[in-house]
Amino acid sequence: MKKIIYPEKKDWMEILRRPALNTDTLRNTVKEVLDKVKTEGDKAVREYEERFDKVKLDSLGVTETEIAEAEKEVPIELKAAIMLAQKNIHTFHSSQRFEGKKVQTVPGVTCWQKAVAIEKVGLYIPGGTAPLFSTVLMLATPAQIAGCKEIVLCTPPDKEGKVHPAILYAAKLAGVNKIFKAGGVQAIAAMAYGTESVPKVYKIFGPGNQYVTAAKQQVSLRDVAIDMPAGPSEVEVLADETANPVFVAADLLSQAEHGVDSQAMLITTSEKLMKEVEYEVQRQLALLPRWEIAEKSLASSKLILVRDMDEAIALTNEYAPEHLIIETRDYMEQAERIVNAGSVFLGSLTPESAGDYASGTNHTLPTNGYAKAYSGVSLDSFIRKITFQEINGEGIQNIGPAIEVMAANEQLGAHKNAVTVRLKTV
Amino acid sequence: MKKIIYPEKKDWMEILRRPALNTDTLRNTVKEVLDKVKTEGDKAVREYEERFDKVKLDSLGVTETEIAEAEKEVPIELKAAIMLAQKNIHTFHSSQRFEGKKVQTVPGVTCWQKAVAIEKVGLYIPGGTAPLFSTVLMLATPAQIAGCKEIVLCTPPDKEGKVHPAILYAAKLAGVNKIFKAGGVQAIAAMAYGTESVPKVYKIFGPGNQYVTAAKQQVSLRDVAIDMPAGPSEVEVLADETANPVFVAADLLSQAEHGVDSQAMLITTSEKLMKEVEYEVQRQLALLPRWEIAEKSLASSKLILVRDMDEAIALTNEYAPEHLIIETRDYMEQAERIVNAGSVFLGSLTPESAGDYASGTNHTLPTNGYAKAYSGVSLDSFIRKITFQEINGEGIQNIGPAIEVMAANEQLGAHKNAVTVRLKTV
Repeated sequence: MKKIIYPEKKDWMEILRRPALNTDTLRNTVKEVLDKVKTEGDKAVREYEERFDKVKLDSLGVTETEIAEAEKEVPIELKAAIMLAQKNIHTFHSSQRFEGKKVQTVPGVTCWQKAVAIEKVGLYIPGGTAPLFSTVLMLATPAQIAGCKEIVLCTPPDKEGKVHPAILYAAKLAGVNKIFKAGGVQAIAAMAYGTESVPKVYKIFGPGNQYVTAAKQQVSLRDVAIDMPAGPSEVEVLADETANPVFVAADLLSQAEHGVDSQAMLITTSEKLMKEVEYEVQRQLALLPRWEIAEKSLASSKLILVRDMDEAIALTNEYAPEHLIIETRDYMEQAERIVNAGSVFLGSLTPESAGDYASGTNHTLPTNGYAKAYSGVSLDSFIRKITFQEINGEGIQNIGPAIEVMAANEQLGAHKNAVTVRLKTV
Repeated sequence: MKKIIYPEKKDWMEILRRPALNTDTLRNTVKEVLDKVKTEGDKAVREYEERFDKVKLDSLGVTETEIAEAEKEVPIELKAAIMLAQKNIHTFHSSQRFEGKKVQTVPGVTCWQKAVAIEKVGLYIPGGTAPLFSTVLMLATPAQIAGCKEIVLCTPPDKEGKVHPAILYAAKLAGVNKIFKAGGVQAIAAMAYGTESVPKVYKIFGPGNQYVTAAKQQVSLRDVAIDMPAGPSEVEVLADETANPVFVAADLLSQAEHGVDSQAMLITTSEKLMKEVEYEVQRQLALLPRWEIAEKSLASSKLILVRDMDEAIALTNEYAPEHLIIETRDYMEQAERIVNAGSVFLGSLTPESAGDYASGTNHTLPTNGYAKAYSGVSLDSFIRKITFQEINGEGIQNIGPAIEVMAANEQLGAHKNAVTVRLKTV
């Protein structure tokens, strides 16, 4: 890890710079796959599954029998853990339900908002060596609470054409309606446009590699909403001299093991802690199964020593980390000053992995500084708020003349007239 | 207007089809302007202002003196109308404030959300013949309520280098901090990347022509969030035999006058009403100042007669109109069944123009069917919800073992270890 001692403000931008994301170069490759699925449907998806996932599929849908079998294959200990996590995610996201209240803005003019579920949502779960059942829970649980009627999940099968049982188990538990064996760009295309078997959805959620990211971007320009723009995962630990260096090192490493482009960052006011963490990271690294990945991402990770907590907070808000762990004496006070972050973990017993799996908060969060403008996934991500207004005779008399004046000044005569014809009758 | 009598469900897609949007062809033109502003800053913005808006500007910023002068130039009647509208918008959007509650998901694990304003937002207000001061109110008012620190507004000046006084008056009233004379792609670029005078913002709001739309799309892929994808404005009136044909026609026309690509749609269960509306539209059209625009957009607008209210509601939800006016006997009951719409206007005295200007609801709404996945602009659009979690000894004992099992099964050893090291100490 790179050590940075008392950086000057003018160097912040350089210090906080993330690896450049550029999916422009993938544009044409991705467009070709999107277009082919759009025109040829299931046939194209099956062809791409054969080419990219090396599997010949007769049909894309996962059957009830497959789901029932999967349930038997998941170890009981893992089932219990998944159930506990799902319960906590359910509890926290249920508390986010929105109840609009009616507001009389002037006498006779009543306005309100109503939350309505997005009817059809698509969840993408990447394949690879590890089955991301936790992401299934994070996306399907709020979709179910919101009341989405159709919750579609696409995930690439293995070479035998099977989906990992833990994925199927989590999907069933969290209320997914339809599961399809499809990965990569072809999966995004199938959900964005619909095929014979995969329903078209209105919003697509979930992580993926750079091709999936580029595909989500492209379809989001016109055809379907997406959860948020994507980038490599990252953590910042903000710590003072009271922090436990063993915990801090473990937290930095749990980010570093995600992938070689992950960023882990310590910002601290304590030189002693910085040195202890540096040592601990090396010690723990050697014991990790994924040490090779972690070692690579640590190369671009940083230990930053700052002059005081004010500077630490300012630097943190400038970085806008996806995950922020605050291990300081007065962590509650410091938390109040955070304005840019995805999810914040408070105190020494709150590791990022708690939020990744089981505390109840969502782990789909804005990376790459997007926390400055985006929230993480929550119940809000699965609803829309429709506004309603009802005006009576008194109301139109109260606001009608103002509307007429404004419409006339915006040179919209018909807008004015829609009020005038009504004012004449009341 | 095209009349469609008792359409079959198989023809719905064709009937509800919107004009195709394609900003792909503008991609290179737009990219050139974006790139030049990104590298050359103010100089490039001034050059483009000269080329596209035919105005030579010494500086981009609107001065305090200009704002003070503008205040004198706005007629007192218009000022009063703008103040009334702003007050109502303020009242309704203030009611949308979010208070997160702390939730204990299991003993010792506390999770909550906190709403935090987006620190820097950019509002784009197009130029053209009419000054869109109403849009200034709709965007700046919630930004101010949210607590955005920097509210930047860009709008193209006229050929004398002046911004319409009503725009400046509304901007000052609603809390805009900085106003710049810049339009089109160069304005979007300036706010997305920042220049010597225009601050970089984190989210850009506001309408615009196809170049502005394409520019917003492009910068949204990586650099900055945007309010929502854009398309031509549209209204649907849902009416039964109790509706007033004069009002219905006036509402259709107030949409039609927006632009030649606007869509106005009547869905009704009453053949008599359909005929009366058809007649009234022609009669009122002749009296409108903007009849030439309205006549063109009416050509692609439709009067649709359906068999019953169930069919009307199903067709409406499939269309997902930006604006929906319900003029039926039982409009409150019908409103309950609406799941896809931007903003809904209830009863015979609630024209769309009320929401366009002064009822208090927002007029920046999802067009083009995007209401299936997007909400209109509201206070939510100017905040993010950051999640927090705090776990104590009891909490980590309650969820720690489940996290260890899940992390191990996702092959993330360091995630597991971050819990293990903590469990050892409690």
